[in-house]
Amino acid sequence: MNVLITGGAGFLGAALARRLAAQGVAGRSVERITLLDRAAPAQPIDDPRVCHVAADISDPAALERAIGEHTGTIVHLAAVVSGQAEADFDLGMRVNVDATRLILERARALGTRPRVVFTSSVAAFGGPLPARVADDTRALPQSSYGVQKAIGELLVGDYTRKGYIDGVTLRLPTISVRPGAPNKAASSFASGIIREPLAGLPAVCPVSTDVRMWLQSPDCAVSNLVHAISLDGALLGIDRTVNLPGLSVSVGEMIGALREVAGADVAARVRFERDPVVERIVTSWPSDFTAERARTLGFVADRDYASIIRAHLASHGVHTAA
Amino acid sequence: MNVLITGGAGFLGAALARRLAAQGVAGRSVERITLLDRAAPAQPIDDPRVCHVAADISDPAALERAIGEHTGTIVHLAAVVSGQAEADFDLGMRVNVDATRLILERARALGTRPRVVFTSSVAAFGGPLPARVADDTRALPQSSYGVQKAIGELLVGDYTRKGYIDGVTLRLPTISVRPGAPNKAASSFASGIIREPLAGLPAVCPVSTDVRMWLQSPDCAVSNLVHAISLDGALLGIDRTVNLPGLSVSVGEMIGALREVAGADVAARVRFERDPVVERIVTSWPSDFTAERARTLGFVADRDYASIIRAHLASHGVHTAA
Ligand SMILES: NC(=O)c1ccc[n+]([C@@H]2O[C@H](COP(=O)([O-])OP(=O)(O)OC[C@H]3O[C@@H](n4cnc5c(N)ncnc54)[C@H](O)[C@@H]3O)[C@@H](O)[C@H]2O)c1
Ligand SMILES: NC(=O)c1ccc[n+]([C@@H]2O[C@H](COP(=O)([O-])OP(=O)(O)OC[C@H]3O[C@@H](n4cnc5c(N)ncnc54)[C@H](O)[C@@H]3O)[C@@H](O)[C@H]2O)c1
Repeated sequence: MNVLITGGAGFLGAALARRLAAQGVAGRSVERITLLDRAAPAQPIDDPRVCHVAADISDPAALERAIGEHTGTIVHLAAVVSGQAEADFDLGMRVNVDATRLILERARALGTRPRVVFTSSVAAFGGPLPARVADDTRALPQSSYGVQKAIGELLVGDYTRKGYIDGVTLRLPTISVRPGAPNKAASSFASGIIREPLAGLPAVCPVSTDVRMWLQSPDCAVSNLVHAISLDGALLGIDRTVNLPGLSVSVGEMIGALREVAGADVAARVRFERDPVVERIVTSWPSDFTAERARTLGFVADRDYASIIRAHLASHGVHTAA
Repeated sequence: MNVLITGGAGFLGAALARRLAAQGVAGRSVERITLLDRAAPAQPIDDPRVCHVAADISDPAALERAIGEHTGTIVHLAAVVSGQAEADFDLGMRVNVDATRLILERARALGTRPRVVFTSSVAAFGGPLPARVADDTRALPQSSYGVQKAIGELLVGDYTRKGYIDGVTLRLPTISVRPGAPNKAASSFASGIIREPLAGLPAVCPVSTDVRMWLQSPDCAVSNLVHAISLDGALLGIDRTVNLPGLSVSVGEMIGALREVAGADVAARVRFERDPVVERIVTSWPSDFTAERARTLGFVADRDYASIIRAHLASHGVHTAA
């Protein structure tokens, strides 16, 4: 297997590369993993099968060089995240829409109908929503990021229907706890309010405790990406977009779980300071899904939020009693 | 008022120009109507306020010249229709997606937040559908035309949300009876099986009599476009896409109405010859809608299909008893 990951130096991309190198996909080993990313991975991945191509995905010539007949699978993760796509509309359109199209065109040009895994988001939804989003709930995104992801979903669907690619789009929950530095996603706090206090640092929460979010751990998200790589396209039929399962957790419950796992002193490091821009974007996203189709297709969710915090600690060498 | 109509030389564009010249919009008269179209109108519109600019909408320089500060309203009708967008994917993407974006960008550059009326279609829907499509039914298009229109809807929504334009998208029913020659729309037969027999010509119907369609007369469609030009954007709120009302009519009922209005000899001029490509596209479209929101907003539908045929005859100087 030969997998190309756009945004492969990013958080999910690097984690996916490590998992693929270690475990392969559905019993098949991976011969080559190409990380196509403007940036270099924060921590180098020390494996001879993993290579990094430094390029911008909006450069067609770079795509032509990096994606070739040998490329069996493309996992397209490079994106301008929600807060930044809202602040810089043109950048979001250029990367999230135009470059996504360039990647689909390159995949089509191969003539091999490669599997393309694309990641959309809960931000594809917005406006009046049922208490639990169903698999056939309409996407009425209320952020530029959400609109751009919804356009990507439509393109992946049509390129698949036309037989140009074999596409799957995963609508990812918000990933928590994301390691490393805060990013420009409006949901960045959903990791920060856990990660910073655990590291002994103060954290600012820009939304109130009753805001609910649809969450998934990094580990679980990577398992779902791996599952999407080998999933039989026929099982998806004409609908190539999957709402992933997740956990519906309020900010208050997240901080409660932090208190439970790490103690009241740690949880007290979270300070509240409302940010209306972040709040408007985040509360436009749905906070609960049935995700029935995804479960039937074999996608997975975490057990509960406290286990997510424990797994985050364990990945940093701190082990706690469950 | 100063209105620019892309595709203004086409069927709906020319009919809209005539209506605007004759009646204005909501009591306001129209000073200038610019028809931006590659082609010239089939019949010249003899009115000093109407001018034709021969240009391709995928040419940014032409858009810059034709759309200026004086442009108060843009009605964007130019499109590659369903059958052609399916046969030539790249052409459909270039005109239906890229040029739509160029037009939205040009409108944004004006800085005046102009009203932009965009026309989508029942083809934005596909896949498993309820018997009657509701206003919140999900768009899962199963043709490239439908995907491209759905992308246009998303863009019109986001450009509006960002305050760049004041947009409205109408999801038009199939227009019947469309005068003139057949076109490359998969739905072209929905006019041909009435228009040709009435003109003494044979017609081929590529789908079976039980295929149902969601229909609207040209007159009604033009009324709805005029209504969209002056509709208060605040009434639309965050959802800028409107499913227009229409008539749900089976092909058998259409031919029955033809028999009722024009006699059995005329109706006998329709011959059936199944075309699986047309059938696949047309039966992927919904054939009935609640269209509640549109009715509340003041959009209209025809009374019944026989009156549509009578109006078509009357517009050709033939008057029949109702
Ligand atoms: N993490 C989440 O909570 C979450 C939730 C929903 C969806 N997603 C989606 O999952 C994907 C991966 O997310 P992540 O959290 O790993 O993001 P990330 O920001 O950590 O990684 C994205 C990577 O893409 C690269 N990139 C961005 N623009 C590029 C360009 N023009 N050319 C080349 N590389 C470029 C960046 O350098 C970065 O390494 C994204 O598409 C994101 O929208 C993430
Ligand atoms: N007529 C219907 O049944 C129906 C139903 C649903 C939606 N619509 C939509 O309504 C709109 C108008 O439909 P119509 O029936 O009048 O179509 P039409 O084909 O009669 O007119 C379209 C016009 O656009 C022009 N055009 C196409 N590409 C162009 C380009 N690149 N540059 C400049 N001009 C270009 C053509 O020359 C033509 O005059 C279209 O967007 C169509 O998709 C129509």
